[in-house]
Parts: sequence; C-alpha cells; structure tokens
Amino acid sequence: MWYTFGVDHFRRIGLLRRRMTRAGLQGVVITHLPDVRYLVGFTGSSGALAITRRSARLFTDARYKLQVAEEVSAARVEIVSSSPAVSAVEWLAAQPGVETAGFDPAQTTVAELTRWRAALPSRVRRGFLIALPVPMVEGLRTIKDEDELAVMIEAALIGCSLFDHILHFIRPGVREIDVAAELEHQARLLGAEGMSFETIAASGVRSAMPHGRATVAPLPRRGFLTLDFGVILKGYCSDMTRTVFLGKPKAEERKAYGAVLEAQEAAVAVVASGVSCGDVDEAARSVLRREGLAEAFSHSTGHGVGLEIHEPPRIGSGQKTRLQPGMVITIEPGIYLEDRFGIRIEDMVAVTRMGGQVLTPAPKALIEL
Amino acid sequence: MWYTFGVDHFRRIGLLRRRMTRAGLQGVVITHLPDVRYLVGFTGSSGALAITRRSARLFTDARYKLQVAEEVSAARVEIVSSSPAVSAVEWLAAQPGVETAGFDPAQTTVAELTRWRAALPSRVRRGFLIALPVPMVEGLRTIKDEDELAVMIEAALIGCSLFDHILHFIRPGVREIDVAAELEHQARLLGAEGMSFETIAASGVRSAMPHGRATVAPLPRRGFLTLDFGVILKGYCSDMTRTVFLGKPKAEERKAYGAVLEAQEAAVAVVASGVSCGDVDEAARSVLRREGLAEAFSHSTGHGVGLEIHEPPRIGSGQKTRLQPGMVITIEPGIYLEDRFGIRIEDMVAVTRMGGQVLTPAPKALIEL
Repeated sequence: MWYTFGVDHFRRIGLLRRRMTRAGLQGVVITHLPDVRYLVGFTGSSGALAITRRSARLFTDARYKLQVAEEVSAARVEIVSSSPAVSAVEWLAAQPGVETAGFDPAQTTVAELTRWRAALPSRVRRGFLIALPVPMVEGLRTIKDEDELAVMIEAALIGCSLFDHILHFIRPGVREIDVAAELEHQARLLGAEGMSFETIAASGVRSAMPHGRATVAPLPRRGFLTLDFGVILKGYCSDMTRTVFLGKPKAEERKAYGAVLEAQEAAVAVVASGVSCGDVDEAARSVLRREGLAEAFSHSTGHGVGLEIHEPPRIGSGQKTRLQPGMVITIEPGIYLEDRFGIRIEDMVAVTRMGGQVLTPAPKALIEL
Repeated sequence: MWYTFGVDHFRRIGLLRRRMTRAGLQGVVITHLPDVRYLVGFTGSSGALAITRRSARLFTDARYKLQVAEEVSAARVEIVSSSPAVSAVEWLAAQPGVETAGFDPAQTTVAELTRWRAALPSRVRRGFLIALPVPMVEGLRTIKDEDELAVMIEAALIGCSLFDHILHFIRPGVREIDVAAELEHQARLLGAEGMSFETIAASGVRSAMPHGRATVAPLPRRGFLTLDFGVILKGYCSDMTRTVFLGKPKAEERKAYGAVLEAQEAAVAVVASGVSCGDVDEAARSVLRREGLAEAFSHSTGHGVGLEIHEPPRIGSGQKTRLQPGMVITIEPGIYLEDRFGIRIEDMVAVTRMGGQVLTPAPKALIEL
C-alpha cells in the first residue's frame, strides 16, 4: 500500500523492549501519534499503543477499522468506542506480571493522567503509572534507520526541486502568498502529502521576521526574499531555507549574506559523530560574532527532524548532547536586522560515521533575480 | 496588518477576568497557542500568557520580537531567552496579591507542570498552581463573537468555491492526490493561509474509509468520491464534505446516498439554541437506524470548529451540552460499507437565536460526473 514501505516495525518494538528491560519496566503506554506511527505504522488521528515484554496492542476507534487492518501488522488491534488511551492503560493493568507501566510525561497532559488513574481498578497500586525520566520512543526516533533515511533523502530532494521550480516564478509584484501557493502546489504534484509547516515567504523588511508568514505583500523591486519550507513524504518532514535577492544587492547586503553563508557552512563542516550540539551551534555563532552580528542571530542553529518537524536534538548554545550516526538535523543560522532585512540559510544534514551528509544540495551562493 | 482585523482583545480578556473572579482565581497561565491567539492576537509558535485581575503579560522569544509588536496590544510583552511558560509562572508568583494561579490541565503536560513547580520560589506555597476544573478560555472560544463569525463565514464560502471549482477537474483516471493538489492550490489563490487538515479524497472502495487520505489511486470510471477539506483564513478553520458519483449510480447506491442526505438534513433541522448535542446526533442517527445503516455510521455527528479544527462541543450520542447562539458546529453523518463504498455529507452550521444557519451552502443533491 502507499503508506507502508517495508518498514520492520517488529525490530523497532524489539529496540523499545530492550530499553524497557533496562529500565525495569513491564509495560509502557504510548499515546503520542508520531511514536505510535513509528512503532507500528498506524497513521490515524486517534490511537494508543500498549506494549509489554510479550505483547503489543493498538487501540483505536471504528473510523479506522479498515485503515488499521491495512497498516498494522506488528500489534494486535482492538477497536474501542471509549478513549483508546484509557483502554490501553486498563489493558496493561489487566496483564499478568505487569506491575508498573511507563508513560511519557512530555506527551501526557495532566488531565489525561488524572483520567487514566481514575480508570484503574482499585486493586492496582497507586504507583502503577510511572513517568519515564527519558522519553523512550523519542530516543529511538532520534536515530533514523535505513528505511527512514531513504524517505528523508527523497523528501529533502523534493524540497530542492521546489526551490529550483520557484526561482522561475519569483519576480517583483508577485505576492508572497502566490509564491507560497505555487511552491505548495508543485509539492503536491511531486508527490508530497502536504507541507511540514506553514510556508515562510518573507520579502523586503519582512525578511527580518524569522517566522514571517507569506502575506499579500508584493515582492519588492529590490530586496531579500527568505523562503523556508518543507514537505511531508510518507510521514517524514523535510526542511530547508534559502534567501535570494531581487535586483542588485548593495555591498553591505552582499557582505551580510556572505557572513551567514560562512556561518552556515562552518556549522555544517563540524557535524560529525561525537561532536556536541553546542559545538555545532558555536561554529556558526562564532563567525557571526566576529562579524558583529551576534545580536542579530536570535535563535538556535538547528534541530532534529523526522516524523515531526521539530525533534531532538536541539542544536543550541551549550547543548551537551553528542551527535550520533543516523541523526538528521537542520543547520540554519540567520540574521535579522529590524526595519532593514533578514537572511537565513538552512540545510538538512544527516550524521554519518564519516561526518555530515548534506541532504539539500540546492545552491547557496547568493542568487540575484 | 493582514493578520489583525479589528478584534477587541480587551473585551475577551475582560470576559476571562469575569470567569476568574467567579472562580476566585487571582491569576491564570495560558500556554495553549490558540487560546493565546484568541486572547491577544499573537500568532507565533512560542508564547505564554499570564493574566491577573489587573495585568496581562505575554512571554515569547526573540524570534518574534517584531511580529509580536505588530500583533499584540492587549498585553505587555516580555522577550525571554528561557521557556516562556516558566517565565509566565514565575511572573505570576511574583505579583502581589496573587496567591493562586489556574492552568488548563488538558493543555499542560505532566512534564511541564513538574518544570513549572520546580521553578517556583520556595516561599510560594505548594498549592499555587491549580488545575482548572473547566477549561476557561476554551469555554469562551466556543461562543464565537461577530469578528469571528465574519471570518468563519468567509472561510466556509471559500470552501464552497473550492467544491465548485473542483467539480470541473474530476474525471476518471485523475489521481486522488491531483484532486487534492488542485483544491489546495486554488485555496491558496483564494487567500487561504493553508488547509485546516490533510485533504481527504477517497474514491471507489476507498471511500469506505472515513479518514481516507488522498493517494495515487486514479479515480474510477464509476463509484463514489468523498471530498472532505477545509481552509484556514485569519487563523479560523472551515470544514465541509461532499460525496459525488463518477458514472451512473445503481439504485442501491442512490438509496444509500439519499439516506445519508436525509440524516444530515434532519440533524441540521433540529439545530437550535437550547437543544442538546445528543439530540442533534440522534436526529441523524435515527434516520440511518431506520434504514438499517446504524452500524455503518461509526462516528459521531459533528464537532465545534473555530481556531482549531476540532473544538467542543462534540455532537455525539448522549452528549448533554446544550447549543448556544454563537457556537459553530459541523453536521457530518456518514456510512461506511467495507469493500463497497462510503458516503459522508458535512456542513458547517452556526447556532443563532433563530435556529441553525448553514455556512456551507454548496449543493447536496447527488452530483453525477
């Protein structure tokens, strides 16, 4: 089927079980949908997964009866008419030998936990549900396997094609939202399921907003245009940014662009297994500091990406997490000069045993249109 | 600016303060972004709002410095380099006379609450943060004001234009994803900021999946095609479904369509202030039950819609919530016959003092293409 691609979910569940054993847990309940998708392939909008050392059971509602049968083979499926998460917790509590079950406190609301606890039979002891100190599935997801890397490479290349396509469309007077619309339409034609976030197309002084949405503002006769966009392919997000110039840049604009590009390339160059995320951030930040642009670089250098557009690790100042082969991160330094302009350049980079592999090889030298 | 439209945020904050007074609360912390947007107009992806009976303060990070200045006038803004939510909680605890602060347990994770509590100075008593028994801002958001209704009517009408547009595009052999792509591109050209959810285009036997995404499957020479889609306009979601037929339907297909249409219209007809959501659901369900299709109608009849695609109230079996003027809900019964076909028809309906006002007046009689 279109949404499966030979993924070995049994292997992923096996990796989770190994972590459960190490943590002394007999069960876990998983409700964060990207985690559920990662472990068993289910792509619906309502579902909860219960995993013990011997069984895996997915709970969802009747709307997904057909879909779940097509998608899921690594867990037994139960269609429920009440809350899937409550059903999962109740099921775990009824399993012989399961005396504690972990949950991810970063993906469970206070209200949900209250409801789960209220649903537990009184013979189950109060400490049955345990907040995991480290998010177990998110930890697994940080390291992409071959199946995931193949899809992410494809998603990133679609991003590059989109950038190439949109260059022919950009001219003064076209509205920012027309640029976004054309880019998104082309993404669909190239097979994307959707965009991984709201497309950013910010021109002229608006480029000084790091998260400037596309507006009805027409592209200026001269000025920067920042395009930050990504597609979703088989659930996986791509993410890239390029900043181009309409008209002829002045020397100072060219210089600023050069500084961001140097910072971006410096950070890409240090990506390697074992390097700390803080050191990658510092590689970019030190270049901009030297150019007197430290203040103008007001965010972190990047983030992990995968089934979600923002995943660990965070590539930020002082972050001690070390890069490992299989991580896919973004490297996206930028500068934002109020009432003047902004520039950001972003690649997706896979960490390999050999160093960093750029997945978005679209041109980065300043393009004048 | 493009993203403000004369909204009276001071009035909304005033309504919240009235609820705070009634609940005996001196402060609240608001972290759910649609709630933040509703109260102060901020559309960024990182922010937290602290409200006391006298002041309102929005915390966000440096990426949004320019944007927040353009968007927000009803709260003082503080740019922080650490977590906006933690900053909001710390600020509340430092306000004289604020001895308790409410938070929404349905929008706060267990991990967040742990972090907030850890950040509180030890002189603040342990019970400072109180889980609100009823979500306060969500409650306000359920009743749309004139500003909101105006935008939602516009968003719904864009949906109708899209349906009209796509009818000329649908023919056997065109892929489901091409239909979705064309619809989404046209949505952008009509001014939408994006789609309110992943467009559903499910044809032939795939129409029996209530949440069937658009795939590379070509449209069949004969069979149903279900289109469920919505746009985002100024932050507000539209939502509508139409099911059309390619080729000539058989008598039983025509009969099934007639049953769903009758059920949908029966539910729309009973929408009125004071009617319970369960009664609206039952109006649709009883028609399908009479036709022997009760089992095939495997979900609830509808849901509230607004800044989020799914909001309270739920229009489901036994739901006691009573409709009130200003609510905007969907009415979307459907039937799903495995390995055969599915049919769903959905309108957005505003509850007024006079009854229900359909916001999506696109044709519902069976269209054969």
